[in-house]
Amino acid sequence: MPSRYTIGLDYGTNSVRTLVVDIANGKEVGTAVWNYRHGADGVILSRDPNLARQHPADYVKGAEQSIRKALAQVKRKVRGFKPEQVVGIGVDTTGSTPLPVDRQGKPLAFQKKFSKTPDAMAWLWKDHTGVAEAAEITDLARKLRPHYLAKCGGVYSSEWYFSKILHCLRTNKEVSEAAYIWVEIADWIPALLTGTEAPEQLTVGICASGHKAMYNDVWRGYPDEEFLGKLHPGLAALPRRLRFKPQTVNRSVGGLTKEWAKRTGLKEGTPVAVGAFDAHLGAIGAGISEGTLVKIIGTSTCDIAIARVEKPLKDIPGLCGIVEGSVLPNHYGLEAGQSAVGDIFNWFVNYLRPDGKNGNHEALAAEASKLKPGESGLLALDWNNGNRTILVDQRLTGLLVGQTLYTTPAEIYRALVEATAFGALAIINRFEEYGVTIERVVNCGGIAEKNPFVMQIYADVTGRPMMISRSAQTCALGSAVAGAVASGCYSSFAEAQNAMTGLKPRVFKPNPAANAVYKDLYKLYRTLHDAFGTTSWNGNLYPVMKQLLDIRNRARK
Amino acid sequence: MPSRYTIGLDYGTNSVRTLVVDIANGKEVGTAVWNYRHGADGVILSRDPNLARQHPADYVKGAEQSIRKALAQVKRKVRGFKPEQVVGIGVDTTGSTPLPVDRQGKPLAFQKKFSKTPDAMAWLWKDHTGVAEAAEITDLARKLRPHYLAKCGGVYSSEWYFSKILHCLRTNKEVSEAAYIWVEIADWIPALLTGTEAPEQLTVGICASGHKAMYNDVWRGYPDEEFLGKLHPGLAALPRRLRFKPQTVNRSVGGLTKEWAKRTGLKEGTPVAVGAFDAHLGAIGAGISEGTLVKIIGTSTCDIAIARVEKPLKDIPGLCGIVEGSVLPNHYGLEAGQSAVGDIFNWFVNYLRPDGKNGNHEALAAEASKLKPGESGLLALDWNNGNRTILVDQRLTGLLVGQTLYTTPAEIYRALVEATAFGALAIINRFEEYGVTIERVVNCGGIAEKNPFVMQIYADVTGRPMMISRSAQTCALGSAVAGAVASGCYSSFAEAQNAMTGLKPRVFKPNPAANAVYKDLYKLYRTLHDAFGTTSWNGNLYPVMKQLLDIRNRARK
Repeated sequence: MPSRYTIGLDYGTNSVRTLVVDIANGKEVGTAVWNYRHGADGVILSRDPNLARQHPADYVKGAEQSIRKALAQVKRKVRGFKPEQVVGIGVDTTGSTPLPVDRQGKPLAFQKKFSKTPDAMAWLWKDHTGVAEAAEITDLARKLRPHYLAKCGGVYSSEWYFSKILHCLRTNKEVSEAAYIWVEIADWIPALLTGTEAPEQLTVGICASGHKAMYNDVWRGYPDEEFLGKLHPGLAALPRRLRFKPQTVNRSVGGLTKEWAKRTGLKEGTPVAVGAFDAHLGAIGAGISEGTLVKIIGTSTCDIAIARVEKPLKDIPGLCGIVEGSVLPNHYGLEAGQSAVGDIFNWFVNYLRPDGKNGNHEALAAEASKLKPGESGLLALDWNNGNRTILVDQRLTGLLVGQTLYTTPAEIYRALVEATAFGALAIINRFEEYGVTIERVVNCGGIAEKNPFVMQIYADVTGRPMMISRSAQTCALGSAVAGAVASGCYSSFAEAQNAMTGLKPRVFKPNPAANAVYKDLYKLYRTLHDAFGTTSWNGNLYPVMKQLLDIRNRARK
Repeated sequence: MPSRYTIGLDYGTNSVRTLVVDIANGKEVGTAVWNYRHGADGVILSRDPNLARQHPADYVKGAEQSIRKALAQVKRKVRGFKPEQVVGIGVDTTGSTPLPVDRQGKPLAFQKKFSKTPDAMAWLWKDHTGVAEAAEITDLARKLRPHYLAKCGGVYSSEWYFSKILHCLRTNKEVSEAAYIWVEIADWIPALLTGTEAPEQLTVGICASGHKAMYNDVWRGYPDEEFLGKLHPGLAALPRRLRFKPQTVNRSVGGLTKEWAKRTGLKEGTPVAVGAFDAHLGAIGAGISEGTLVKIIGTSTCDIAIARVEKPLKDIPGLCGIVEGSVLPNHYGLEAGQSAVGDIFNWFVNYLRPDGKNGNHEALAAEASKLKPGESGLLALDWNNGNRTILVDQRLTGLLVGQTLYTTPAEIYRALVEATAFGALAIINRFEEYGVTIERVVNCGGIAEKNPFVMQIYADVTGRPMMISRSAQTCALGSAVAGAVASGCYSSFAEAQNAMTGLKPRVFKPNPAANAVYKDLYKLYRTLHDAFGTTSWNGNLYPVMKQLLDIRNRARK
């Protein structure tokens, strides 16, 4: 029997990637990237620094081009390969990235009059134009529907679905009136490929609706009309325009249309899985299971854990999302994250440009790796871009303490890496305080793959082994796994993950002596964290500098 | 009548300077610097980073060489100049820099067997080998003689006289037994020039004895023998080996010896004023009077104010010294200081080497000067080298808060400058809280002269005009003024200062709008200052980051 393959389509911020994977062993036999053509690297900007949009034409062209190119690569590499050996497709995207569409489910931006209107395009995840509306939604929910907030960390974000739509309702009447519904691109792209964009036919995923649109079976669906109506009458109508209950990614939304078969060279009717966000399918691609935290480490991190629905689960304060089925069916998907990780290291290297010519990541990491824990006397907070989990507060900033007249760039670089590790530990501890045990961490992304210095510190700080996902394209691989399950080739994600995903051989094990020092430093980190980040802390910080000096003196002995 | 001149001899850490000054108008007609020959730039070091010594041979050779060279310069510049026109000499030195001498007042280091023994040399001001002994002295005084500490900020420093001697008594029996007394070089050099080194003839200055050896008329002299004896029997004997009551700098210790007249080319018998520390004579050279704070800004600062003795003066907590007559006769000399100012800017430039090739002081100051107060959102504590006044705590470290992903080197540079200005304001406020009004500030030193950016921030932060001393050699000039008074050419310092000292024309006036922003920032500085620097503060720091962001947003509008 010839090999069977599935495709993972991974829509990022600047480009889309197609990955073709052998479902028997996870072998990645072909891949291609297509860079978006609109805006700056695919992002439409304006004078308002909060605005970030994408043109949906890039999604369409990107699917066609990247699939064709990837298939061409497979043909060159795999003797006798035929496109009908591709048996399923999965799709992951950024999010929340809602797109206003018309009565037929077509993007408004495809209409001539809206083709250059940013408000008619997709509102990219990092668009923050809805800051005021997010605060309004949070305030109203606090008063009237506190249970809504309990599932999303206590604060409704400006990055999310209703904040963006409400901002459009408040500021652009023409687009708002032309928009029949707003669809997350995680849902719209599978619908496009299967011809199911019409609102009556549209399948939305539980990942996007649960994490960004406050959908939850506990309150029987989306926020109720009374609540939405108090925000704006235009919001109230949206949920009832969707027919189907949100689905998990093991389901197919339909088969590839004849047109898309022609455009891509794939077989008509090939099943397309329900779409989900990159981090959630990335967690699947990293082999997530109970007890495993998957960290997708990039400029920021997305941290995903799961918990079986049979066990009772309390609301976990500060988590950005607790959604049944958002990662795997029959499991709660638990989403946390750090607002900046790689971005902090990049800030130090690119903005401060320290250490003259030697100020690159490699040189700084090499020098910093020679230092012992605590030896620099430094301690930092990883809040240069706010704190997503566990404080859910964008209005926080960085802090560095312990500088002397001899503090070096490598010492600061290490302190910044350690700060992100302390931030990671705060998240792990929060999970465990609420009964979700984290025994091991699987890391994905460039920093995880290329930076053993960072991974060793993470192991030493958290006291847990750090593993690295085998695939360099974990999100696309997770989409391909979803494609394999949705197509019926596997009857469960456990089976599919077992066959298709894996870890790199190198595991970073915690060093007990380093971990002991970091336990002391973490206490001081939490003191600063709570003193600057919460209103409930009360005390005195006199011991902080003294204890840092004591730890330093012990480390230097 | 031909012009009359006096000489100021200024003994620094790395070199000695001779300045020849016209007493009628302060004109500096000749100067020469002689670099010490021993050790690294004049400082003898060891593997112990706390150790810093000087060889007294450098003081002797330095006086001879720099005076001869300066006089040669005057001869070239002033037609018909004759050395007998030099009518007085003043001497300032670093301190506390005590030197162990034998029964005849000769330095032990001049004996062959001790010529390479660091403990037998001068223990330079920045020698910290007596850290443990300083703590011991402080502890004992807290228990038995709290009034001793009330005059020196509550803590006896490891840099000071008794800490150093006690450390020697504890660790080097041979040197301790050979040392009949320990003499501050501020006293020993005038004695050397006038042949009055013998303990029976020695005149010590009130500046050194009052600020560093706890001499005070309130308790009738040095610490009592019972107290010193409890620390070490060898300490108890020292004070009674001195005959004369400590003197103010308007007095002469004697006339230049025949030998020194020959060595220098000056007239035998030329009066030499009582010696004092560089900062104190620097304050005179800067034209100190009541209501004026003189800031000598270098790597650290020394801040000097005075208050008439007729008015009652409370002890001022945190000041490093309150000594009657230590600057001017009939005035309390009040000494404060910041542990690091230029050193912090130098650390940023030399250790972090930010901003690639552009990371020099000039470029950073130019860019930072374009920023508005509060615009960066940053706030720093100026504690990279501890805090001398008002916390008197070396075990404090730097802190920076407010960093984002876009913070630039120039923004941090400005925040560091502002932090030192806030530190300066904390000192000014402490003076005023205890009844010593500070109406204007006269600044001396390289930063004051060359860095208008720093001076404007100091004016804006403190809300007071910043003036700059006219002379670039304020300490040496102050010594020359003392020489002029001690020689009887002037009957008061007020007259001598009026003739010989002055200000540069440019005055930095506070900008009221900038001052208003800095008032808000200073409140936050004091919150951090008190939270990290005192044990009595109790509270929550949640508002700090928020208010910095609010101030930033207002500044950017």
